[in-house]
Amino acid sequence: MNSLDRLRKIFLRSLESDFSEPEWNRQPDSLYAPQRYILGIGGKRLRPILALMAAESMGRNALEALPVAHAVERFHNFSLIHDDIMDEAPLRRAKETVHEKWNTNIAILSGDVLFVKAYELICKNPPNLIPALMQVFNRTALEVCEGQQMDMDFETRNDVTIPQYIKMIEYKTAVLIGASLQMGAIIAEASESCQEKIYAFGKNLGIAFQLQDDYLDAFGNPLTFGKQVGGDIIANKKTFLYLTALQKSTHSEAQELSSLFATMPKDPSDKITAVKEIFVSSGAAKATEDEILRYTNTSISLLQDIKISQQHKDTLKSFADFLMNRNV
Amino acid sequence: MNSLDRLRKIFLRSLESDFSEPEWNRQPDSLYAPQRYILGIGGKRLRPILALMAAESMGRNALEALPVAHAVERFHNFSLIHDDIMDEAPLRRAKETVHEKWNTNIAILSGDVLFVKAYELICKNPPNLIPALMQVFNRTALEVCEGQQMDMDFETRNDVTIPQYIKMIEYKTAVLIGASLQMGAIIAEASESCQEKIYAFGKNLGIAFQLQDDYLDAFGNPLTFGKQVGGDIIANKKTFLYLTALQKSTHSEAQELSSLFATMPKDPSDKITAVKEIFVSSGAAKATEDEILRYTNTSISLLQDIKISQQHKDTLKSFADFLMNRNV
Repeated sequence: MNSLDRLRKIFLRSLESDFSEPEWNRQPDSLYAPQRYILGIGGKRLRPILALMAAESMGRNALEALPVAHAVERFHNFSLIHDDIMDEAPLRRAKETVHEKWNTNIAILSGDVLFVKAYELICKNPPNLIPALMQVFNRTALEVCEGQQMDMDFETRNDVTIPQYIKMIEYKTAVLIGASLQMGAIIAEASESCQEKIYAFGKNLGIAFQLQDDYLDAFGNPLTFGKQVGGDIIANKKTFLYLTALQKSTHSEAQELSSLFATMPKDPSDKITAVKEIFVSSGAAKATEDEILRYTNTSISLLQDIKISQQHKDTLKSFADFLMNRNV
Repeated sequence: MNSLDRLRKIFLRSLESDFSEPEWNRQPDSLYAPQRYILGIGGKRLRPILALMAAESMGRNALEALPVAHAVERFHNFSLIHDDIMDEAPLRRAKETVHEKWNTNIAILSGDVLFVKAYELICKNPPNLIPALMQVFNRTALEVCEGQQMDMDFETRNDVTIPQYIKMIEYKTAVLIGASLQMGAIIAEASESCQEKIYAFGKNLGIAFQLQDDYLDAFGNPLTFGKQVGGDIIANKKTFLYLTALQKSTHSEAQELSSLFATMPKDPSDKITAVKEIFVSSGAAKATEDEILRYTNTSISLLQDIKISQQHKDTLKSFADFLMNRNV
């Protein structure tokens, strides 16, 4: 069994036994059932695995990082519950979202409690580590909220620049990947320089991952992508592909693309085909592939400088490969 | 100038200068403007004043407790923003609520950020105090959310008992009053026993205050109460008065009361008059007055045991008098 599967198993076993703790049997259950539900319906558990992996690669038993692993997973699920309300999403991990299964009020409040419970987990660590953990966690939580607000603001803006888009995905997605690793490193009492490097590894990998998600939304294999291919095009989402295509295409192509992104046809298949053609002909598809590779390479090159064994570098590199070579 | 006004001035001056800090000028402003708005539109600032008062009464300069004072005020305003969404409240402190002035999504997210900012403030304290502060703050945050959920659950339940109602107002309102004082005491490095007593003083006072709010909603002076007198009766809210009246009244009175609480007449004045008559005739009004007095007396008697000067006991007692003798 590789490290990733082993650490996932450790986390899932701990989550399972966690649910039998009295903290999950508090009243009113109407507030706790939605939290158990969202934590229980799966997901890849990438963030908690990274926290465990970082601590282990820096010489600690992965079990010591379980409280931070649970904290980042709770925070992630808090943000999913609230984001799903804002996006009016009916489904999450192919199951009903919390606000659909219960209602919006319960979703707001059970999200809030999950957030408190993330902080509770941080406080289960050795007291001398709590200030450093809190500092990383607070900064990250703030940035994740800012990223979500930017994403909402971008929906009604026509002047979003590519750097602004990158900043948005950095905040919304990538910083929590970096913070999960950094918090694992703090548990291992790694040096600040070491913490910063593993954070940067995670942040760059997170940006690459999100850019790849944008790319696969248009060019992924419908059989394996997991979401509806063309979903961003249907929703007129200004992704990296779209913004790059606008910048790189001829005047007439740019006009066509803008016009296509002002429509919401009932049968979107012609629109999807036309938009993807412009993404390719403008060079945006190739530019996006290049950018994904650039962030992935930056991420992996940052690994070299971290003072950990070659074996642990290889483990972190396999994680990056796993993330970036999804079979889609 | 009495202590209360002096401490309020200290807090307000600090809040004012806080707004010019870079943390309030982060982007996107669409996320920060609502937070500055809710913190800026007033309120009595009871919780931050209590944090300052506790620290001062235990021998510290009130200024040392400013970070916890800001933390409890931010937390309180986070909970108001989210509660107002859930209650669909149009007004707060006679101004538009955040979700009305902006929208629900911005209200959810700016509430979330205000919550993070409360935790940031806690982390500005001496590192050795952070674990104790976090422990009180997390427990309180959890209970406040649980109280709000109980309140929502009670709307559709017909079997709410009086102890359950008391537990609800304890969690929703009183624990944060207690925690504000306790966090001030932690800043003063008071003993645990001292912390617990000042917490209990605040919690009992908070319950008395909320029971009085229920009482005044029916029997307050419309000219000075600040809210619509009879508002709870119009909304069929199962308050302490209502639950006690049901328990104490004759079978036919109880039936009449239940029937009245199943209606929402366009002109509610007859309903209000009839309900208030039952509140009085059943003895519920008197029982509520007694209960308010009982919690107030418990609160004040707890003061006697705390190891602080008589002068500071007097200051805390004046605060209780100020809170309980509102001219209504």
